[in-house]
Amino acid sequence: MEDGVKVIEIKKSIFEDNEKEADALRAELKRKGVYLLNLMSSPGSGKTTTLIRLVNLIKDQVRVAVMEADIDSDVDAVKIKEATGIPSIQLHTGGMCHLDAEMTRQGLDNVALDGLDLVILENVGNLVCPAEFDTGSAQNAMILSVPEGHDKPLKYPLMFSICNLVVINKMDVMPYFDFDLDKCKEYIHMRNPKATVIPICAKTGEGVDELAQWLLNEIKNWKN
Amino acid sequence: MEDGVKVIEIKKSIFEDNEKEADALRAELKRKGVYLLNLMSSPGSGKTTTLIRLVNLIKDQVRVAVMEADIDSDVDAVKIKEATGIPSIQLHTGGMCHLDAEMTRQGLDNVALDGLDLVILENVGNLVCPAEFDTGSAQNAMILSVPEGHDKPLKYPLMFSICNLVVINKMDVMPYFDFDLDKCKEYIHMRNPKATVIPICAKTGEGVDELAQWLLNEIKNWKN
Repeated sequence: MEDGVKVIEIKKSIFEDNEKEADALRAELKRKGVYLLNLMSSPGSGKTTTLIRLVNLIKDQVRVAVMEADIDSDVDAVKIKEATGIPSIQLHTGGMCHLDAEMTRQGLDNVALDGLDLVILENVGNLVCPAEFDTGSAQNAMILSVPEGHDKPLKYPLMFSICNLVVINKMDVMPYFDFDLDKCKEYIHMRNPKATVIPICAKTGEGVDELAQWLLNEIKNWKN
Repeated sequence: MEDGVKVIEIKKSIFEDNEKEADALRAELKRKGVYLLNLMSSPGSGKTTTLIRLVNLIKDQVRVAVMEADIDSDVDAVKIKEATGIPSIQLHTGGMCHLDAEMTRQGLDNVALDGLDLVILENVGNLVCPAEFDTGSAQNAMILSVPEGHDKPLKYPLMFSICNLVVINKMDVMPYFDFDLDKCKEYIHMRNPKATVIPICAKTGEGVDELAQWLLNEIKNWKN
């Protein structure tokens, strides 16, 4: 325990077949009625700020917990807990660049799943490796922030192809960056025609209601 | 050849001892008087824009080539070539999240090293994995951009500990972000007390002269 949040040191997986582990975890969560969202992005795209806004919008309608994966530090889990009051734990990956299903399970073993509707996993900030490992989540989502540029779907094809939701964050700074939203949407749909794109500003809260609606709908479908 | 730049498909290394390979490559480059700079950052921090500014400032004083590593696409190599006129090649990593020494050598095999003073390797946009692999470069450098936040040295300790130069880019948007430059420097020096920190704005060119001076000095020392 540091600053009131639990810090879990994640160990390297011993299982060779991650897809099998992921399918088993997903089936188990389905049975328990727990929707696991795997949220990915570059470092500094605003995952934590977005989560705080989102959780505060939905926490009266669904019971939610957050797992914050980081190589080091527990700043994110502390922030989430302080700003939302919901259960939040920190997963330390000890240098590892992604989480797989077994590592996700190690985190979930420290979350009281009974009675929960939603667990959000904030994956390691990285557009490359996390895309290669199924965590067992119900859905993959990612945040791309305006300062990163609209060409990212061209450069990180796998990440954009596996995410069915792409949140475009930091819309408030659009005037100061050379970011073409239409082109960005076009590139995203080149990678995944089914992807939902939701522009938001986590700082002001703009667009987060649409994101909340998307997620509540997902959870409802998952429980049916 | 696509759009006039050479695209090299990098193969996975067959060597087990990357440190040995890296030392051998470094010694070879030292003999040839070629300074290799390994430039790393998150996706979208402005590596390519910074390189264009930097190369245009120094290309009359040193002979320089650029290798752009990317999982896919050749947009960066094309941009560099068009904006600077210097030799620029694209390395495709085929999904791999980093370059090691042998992969760097595969790229260098496609660069005419004779008569060159400087090769800049733009590594894959990723703050995690590239930090773990010595490329054989004379120096590791990284760019952190203001929108990513000043807490990144806390979250990506290895990257900040192996870089002796940290460029802080996008200084022009400081007023729109909650970024504390003094705190950032403090965190960087926690990871590496020797690190030089240079704030710049690649878009306007502010601070790039200091970066050029740092690099010209490095090359001079390397050749002695």
